[in-house]
Amino acid sequence: MADETLFEFLHMEMVAHVYKSQKQDEQEPTKCLAVLEGMGFRVGQGLIERLTKDTPTFKDELDILKFICKDLWTNIFKKQIDNLRTNHQGTYVLQDNRFHLLTQLSSSKQYLEEAPKFLAYTCGLVKGALSNLGINSTVTAEVPIMPACKFQVMILRT
Amino acid sequence: MADETLFEFLHMEMVAHVYKSQKQDEQEPTKCLAVLEGMGFRVGQGLIERLTKDTPTFKDELDILKFICKDLWTNIFKKQIDNLRTNHQGTYVLQDNRFHLLTQLSSSKQYLEEAPKFLAYTCGLVKGALSNLGINSTVTAEVPIMPACKFQVMILRT
Repeated sequence: MADETLFEFLHMEMVAHVYKSQKQDEQEPTKCLAVLEGMGFRVGQGLIERLTKDTPTFKDELDILKFICKDLWTNIFKKQIDNLRTNHQGTYVLQDNRFHLLTQLSSSKQYLEEAPKFLAYTCGLVKGALSNLGINSTVTAEVPIMPACKFQVMILRT
Repeated sequence: MADETLFEFLHMEMVAHVYKSQKQDEQEPTKCLAVLEGMGFRVGQGLIERLTKDTPTFKDELDILKFICKDLWTNIFKKQIDNLRTNHQGTYVLQDNRFHLLTQLSSSKQYLEEAPKFLAYTCGLVKGALSNLGINSTVTAEVPIMPACKFQVMILRT
């Protein structure tokens, strides 16, 4: 059995719980996505701290993004990001052709609408990891075709 | 970096979220423990189903408990239960001398009082796993000395 199963199950439970507890308060879905993103953010910060403990300094921004695609992704999802693209102006697109947290979902249109629930936590994770490496960003995700997922990272310059 | 870190971080976030979302509703702490136990229960059911897929039938109850101590524990915590005891009348005590979900906590008395928060999910996990193998039980936990943990399983005969 693959190790990621525990994470997948726990993630599913967490998503269900966040939506259930919010429902009681009759608050809107964007609040739930923000809660999940916040949880991911803090986990991303913690994980990257451990992961980069013995890593020499990064050369540049692209070097950091490559580390996210390779080391962080492998640590969480047991595979690397399949494709990394950039416009060299602070936008990066990370494509995972088989995103683990979507593989349990049906690919029917009804479920596709549910996809954001299962992406918010990971968006937060990437954002938290980058933040701990000194990069402020916004991270969004879209599903071009199930179970692929594109994460778009936009660097916020201060 | 050890793989269990992702699980540990996620678990911490989950505990914090459950307590935070309950606080808003001004409900009592036992409700939070029940929520965490319920999440663990469903994850335990799912995990044991995957883990026992290729396992031949179990000889008896003790055989099942040994599987929990060895295979399930290793899958989740990367180590086995250190000690399994039974009174041969349906009570089993599983002792983990270094329980991962407690190792991040300080061992001061103040934190010891917080320990149940970090055990409820795992109690549910064990209960869910046993339930899926046809055994109804109650599972409680206590901390003899940090970071050791004793899980007491009482089989409910019908």
